Amino acid sequence: MTLKKEHRIGRHATLLLLMEETHELEEITKQLNWKSCLGKVGSMDSQKVVAAIEVAAKQQGIIKENLYRESHALYHAIMEALHGITRGQMQLGSVMRTVGLRFAVVRGNPYEEEVEGEWLAVAIYGTIGAPVRGLEHETLGLGINHI
Amino acid sequence: MTLKKEHRIGRHATLLLLMEETHELEEITKQLNWKSCLGKVGSMDSQKVVAAIEVAAKQQGIIKENLYRESHALYHAIMEALHGITRGQMQLGSVMRTVGLRFAVVRGNPYEEEVEGEWLAVAIYGTIGAPVRGLEHETLGLGINHI
Amino acid sequence: MTLKKEHRIGRHATLLLLMEETHELEEITKQLNWKSCLGKVGSMDSQKVVAAIEVAAKQQGIIKENLYRESHALYHAIMEALHGITRGQMQLGSVMRTVGLRFAVVRGNPYEEEVEGEWLAVAIYGTIGAPVRGLEHETLGLGINHI
Amino acid sequence: MTLKKEHRIGRHATLLLLMEETHELEEITKQLNWKSCLGKVGSMDSQKVVAAIEVAAKQQGIIKENLYRESHALYHAIMEALHGITRGQMQLGSVMRTVGLRFAVVRGNPYEEEVEGEWLAVAIYGTIGAPVRGLEHETLGLGINHI
Amino acid sequence: MTLKKEHRIGRHATLLLLMEETHELEEITKQLNWKSCLGKVGSMDSQKVVAAIEVAAKQQGIIKENLYRESHALYHAIMEALHGITRGQMQLGSVMRTVGLRFAVVRGNPYEEEVEGEWLAVAIYGTIGAPVRGLEHETLGLGINHI
Amino acid sequence: MTLKKEHRIGRHATLLLLMEETHELEEITKQLNWKSCLGKVGSMDSQKVVAAIEVAAKQQGIIKENLYRESHALYHAIMEALHGITRGQMQLGSVMRTVGLRFAVVRGNPYEEEVEGEWLAVAIYGTIGAPVRGLEHETLGLGINHI
Repeated sequence: MTLKKEHRIGRHATLLLLMEETHELEEITKQLNWKSCLGKVGSMDSQKVVAAIEVAAKQQGIIKENLYRESHALYHAIMEALHGITRGQMQLGSVMRTVGLRFAVVRGNPYEEEVEGEWLAVAIYGTIGAPVRGLEHETLGLGINHI
Repeated sequence: MTLKKEHRIGRHATLLLLMEETHELEEITKQLNWKSCLGKVGSMDSQKVVAAIEVAAKQQGIIKENLYRESHALYHAIMEALHGITRGQMQLGSVMRTVGLRFAVVRGNPYEEEVEGEWLAVAIYGTIGAPVRGLEHETLGLGINHI
Repeated sequence: MTLKKEHRIGRHATLLLLMEETHELEEITKQLNWKSCLGKVGSMDSQKVVAAIEVAAKQQGIIKENLYRESHALYHAIMEALHGITRGQMQLGSVMRTVGLRFAVVRGNPYEEEVEGEWLAVAIYGTIGAPVRGLEHETLGLGINHI
Repeated sequence: MTLKKEHRIGRHATLLLLMEETHELEEITKQLNWKSCLGKVGSMDSQKVVAAIEVAAKQQGIIKENLYRESHALYHAIMEALHGITRGQMQLGSVMRTVGLRFAVVRGNPYEEEVEGEWLAVAIYGTIGAPVRGLEHETLGLGINHI
Repeated sequence: MTLKKEHRIGRHATLLLLMEETHELEEITKQLNWKSCLGKVGSMDSQKVVAAIEVAAKQQGIIKENLYRESHALYHAIMEALHGITRGQMQLGSVMRTVGLRFAVVRGNPYEEEVEGEWLAVAIYGTIGAPVRGLEHETLGLGINHI
Repeated sequence: MTLKKEHRIGRHATLLLLMEETHELEEITKQLNWKSCLGKVGSMDSQKVVAAIEVAAKQQGIIKENLYRESHALYHAIMEALHGITRGQMQLGSVMRTVGLRFAVVRGNPYEEEVEGEWLAVAIYGTIGAPVRGLEHETLGLGINHI
């Protein structure tokens, strides 16, 4: 149950968002037989952020749509990432703020032992701030869950 | 008050932790007249994580030790980063978990307008888990504050 | 001020929701001169859950409608029960989830000493999950307050 | 992915704590090939509550000690149950309160579809209050996670 | 159930802490047959803050020591006041901060209707900051509960 | 970096709300070259409370409208004050409660050292309760931030 340095899915998901050139990262995804997807969402409505990530992960085959255990794993990974994004209250419009975000979901086994199975990483990066253009700063969140 | 794409201090601080080769990033720091520092801390004691970042930022001259407004700015940036690390309760040992973390603090102006002044980014990345070697997964947090 | 084993109103309220046959429990309610009511509510709107319990408790005479101290006692007992239901953020639709719940409110004196007076127990049990039929699991909450 | 009425592991775990006669429940556990364990813990130290449940679940074979994904599933189910127990801050002694608790962990498949696999329920019930005998009331928490 | 303007116990408790001359306020307390007490506590240990208020309120006869319903009412009023003091996590030393506080507890009926009975106000005011002299700012909290 | 006793902006902002006669306080504001504003807002919508304070502070020149660092400082001071107002979840209508509030924003230097620069205090005082006239009690919050 040791994290394999080259298989850190959280770091991988975050770099997919932060690096300008992601070709190399996508090569790794392929080689390791991982699955990953990218997306973006801007809203004052926290519900839309959750939905955008869920829809992307399902439509791009990262998780199986009809399997609740996979939806459940993804949901909690999203919630954990949103703790980093919202830092205190998981609220956007209701505390008068809005976000412009990109997200990456990666599914793979980050551990040396194969028996540890698959895990999910949800990384979210973008800006948060007042609903006025420019009154915003960066924000970042990462959630990890077993699937 | 527009975030300058090349001046995103949060992204910069996070990449300082995630990339193996940080030479290029440090060049940017120098060029832009930013200040940055790196450090690491492992503990079950959340207090030690806060203290390690505060001490590093003061000793390496990122903030002025005797100026409360700078300590105050750093403290809240650390707290925000710890929301991402702890995802719900800002507790470690008291909920039976431990962390092994590296952190980066970056001080600079991420906005196009010079009048927006200096801001701080605190990025933290590492592992969180049970106090048993290997029973852990990745965790990441980012806090941003004006200084 | 010792909790009387047979007078545990929290256990009583929870069993009213979990047992198929509640006749015996209702007998106890009568014998002890307690008051209790049952209800159900399904919603993505947390406000409706609070309102459903408040309305039921008032209409069925568990608390006096026009006495604020009783409304206040009930409100905080509901909030505490919702902590168990929502486990982190007291939000439903705004974090893309919905509930199907039954609830019980019991009013009585659970302590050996009569001077401890009346207390309220609010128990809530049901399912929580995505707004898709079946993508849900059980959830349970209990709130206790003096009245 | 429909919850099977007779297979509700959360209700089952809670009844194991609340009913005086649990023989029938244990029969069901056996029949359904579920696993369950019971334990108790009293402390002002939240860490000890977490540890007591983890140790019991490992020693009694509910989860595999060396498999991180199972420890991770259990940990988050415990955390969710503690939200119900602590209702706001996951703290005990540090906010001057203590608990006397019994807990049940149940592992089984609560869904009609076999493909939904195994889930964990952690139920906790007991008293919470001031560190003075008798100054306490009931408290209850339930956590559910896929494993 | 209308709040009587002259009987606002929360305002009264807060003014007891903020005004230099409290003679007039104490006159009001006497006239209205209210009870009030004042105290101070400085600590990095949140437990000591709770204990200091509880001990003062009991020793000065604001609440009855052996009556759990009064202890319970006070405890939750303290917790609510601490939300204002700590603003996010009810932690002091564990997030590397300390407080120097004065507090006031007032017991009386703030409503026009006598039937609304007695209520408690706990006001806390002082400084919060790093465990270094001067690195601190003001903080204030108020909790109200029926008793 | 010592708080000057006569320059405590948090106490000042709170007294502006609690005292009937504020003439003396306004004299101090003028003498010290501080800025302050007052306003009121009643709503079940937490967003409106945030917006009311932001709008008042901008329109009355307490902060510069187009400077993000000042908006950011104010926003976090408001959030901190709302912790005191809401005591647990920063939600109003979504947990079935409403507020009637007055607020004061004060900008000034509360420290002996001029180098500590300007700080903001946001004080909020009023009532919180059910959306029924009279079913409400007092609530108070204070946020402090460097600007």
